[in-house]
Amino acid sequence: MNTLHIIGVGLIGGSFALDVKMQRPGVRIFGIDENSDHLEKAKELNIIDDTAQIEDLNDAEVVILAIPVDATVELMPEILDRVHDDALVIDMGSTKEEICVKVKDHPKRRNFLAAHPIAGTEFSGPTAAIHNLFRGKTNIICEVEETGFKLQEKAMSLFKDLGMRIRYMKPKAHDKHIAYVSHLSHISSFMLGKTVIEKEKNERDIFDMAGSGFESTVRLAKSSPDMWTPIFKQNKTNVIETLNEYICNLENFKQLMEQEDFEGIYKEMQNTNYIKKILKGIE
Amino acid sequence: MNTLHIIGVGLIGGSFALDVKMQRPGVRIFGIDENSDHLEKAKELNIIDDTAQIEDLNDAEVVILAIPVDATVELMPEILDRVHDDALVIDMGSTKEEICVKVKDHPKRRNFLAAHPIAGTEFSGPTAAIHNLFRGKTNIICEVEETGFKLQEKAMSLFKDLGMRIRYMKPKAHDKHIAYVSHLSHISSFMLGKTVIEKEKNERDIFDMAGSGFESTVRLAKSSPDMWTPIFKQNKTNVIETLNEYICNLENFKQLMEQEDFEGIYKEMQNTNYIKKILKGIE
Repeated sequence: MNTLHIIGVGLIGGSFALDVKMQRPGVRIFGIDENSDHLEKAKELNIIDDTAQIEDLNDAEVVILAIPVDATVELMPEILDRVHDDALVIDMGSTKEEICVKVKDHPKRRNFLAAHPIAGTEFSGPTAAIHNLFRGKTNIICEVEETGFKLQEKAMSLFKDLGMRIRYMKPKAHDKHIAYVSHLSHISSFMLGKTVIEKEKNERDIFDMAGSGFESTVRLAKSSPDMWTPIFKQNKTNVIETLNEYICNLENFKQLMEQEDFEGIYKEMQNTNYIKKILKGIE
Repeated sequence: MNTLHIIGVGLIGGSFALDVKMQRPGVRIFGIDENSDHLEKAKELNIIDDTAQIEDLNDAEVVILAIPVDATVELMPEILDRVHDDALVIDMGSTKEEICVKVKDHPKRRNFLAAHPIAGTEFSGPTAAIHNLFRGKTNIICEVEETGFKLQEKAMSLFKDLGMRIRYMKPKAHDKHIAYVSHLSHISSFMLGKTVIEKEKNERDIFDMAGSGFESTVRLAKSSPDMWTPIFKQNKTNVIETLNEYICNLENFKQLMEQEDFEGIYKEMQNTNYIKKILKGIE
């Protein structure tokens, strides 16, 4: 790999660029972004070597898309139209079904790889880019068999250099499960933040009472609405299902409280402590 | 201060002991705990110098209670009965109204200080005790005027040595606000953990998909039911109120999703991003 084009030089695209630079210093990295401030900042921070335009993609060898998922779906056909036959185009978005359906019959489908690296922070933009964001993280690849074999190999070698472990899934299954382990977490966090802000808006001092527990449960409420609105839109059905189940569990907990069934409350918490085991598996 | 008796040598009591040992190496620390394994472990880890019994409190100079809040309410009158007139007894529990009501008319009320250090982790027991847990954290003192003046001074000097900043509140206000910034966070986290575990119980691999976002929102679901059940019991009314508001906000978010009002979803998230400012205040 001699060149890399990154569309979207924010947290994900920028962090990807930083690690490629470190692992493969010979690669020349071009940034494409409709936000010219971001582009400038990314160059200033040495995240990219140079800026480029969509029109330059004819010569691209590897293209990474790390932009909001609605923009990805809109832009992908044009990108595939432009790139040459040996180019590899990788999408890193948090939903996979809509993009896979969109390019299903594209003549250059084999040039596309659908990926979702489970990595990120609550920050955004090029200043949020950090080294080793992807190291040890899971990268979910969807419909791998639809990507050309040599291009699969090229992508895997790149992901391996960045320290990612690979899992293969169907897009439908990806979107369904990711709704539970990622999308619902964001909503629970946003609504927790909202509940507390609403209640305490006239009592700023109250946040002096907030400790690290509150901080960790509302951390995701700092996330970018630009990124998350299209994710919720594309994964609407699954997200609504998770919300129904979450609300139902909260209602049940409330009912136990109202009935003063504190033995029941104890059991709820004890059973959920099982999450310790699960999280140990993640670490 | 020459001696310190700590009732409950777990995360809070143990961490308190560790810091007192560091700041005031001359103080002899006695541990009291109905769990003899914990006592033994605390001694082995040099958290306490020696073990003691409730009966030994006649000679106690400063007594710290760091046990579940129901046990505190049950035990406090007996402790106050036992200690001498110059002793200082500090409760560190997460609810303050019930304990303040309980000792309201106790002849030794002036020996008692109601405190709530907003510090902790999701772990418990003496092995969870860590240095500097309280440094830079808020310590909420309730009904300070009910504590003897010299004993107030003694407590403040101790808290200062441990690096805590002090805030004064009435017990009712404390319990109401802490329901939002702490108790609700725990329930939202427990129920998130429950929702995901229920859904994914037969698909362990799915947790490979969970990233740091999920991990941080369910962190509190590792917390001890022994500690949290009595807290929810004592703060029932406030907790139910926060739950109602939280569920209502989640229902509203779900409705926006169902109506495909993604502009509304965007605004919800954008408004809640205000939490960034608030959290900056906490750090």
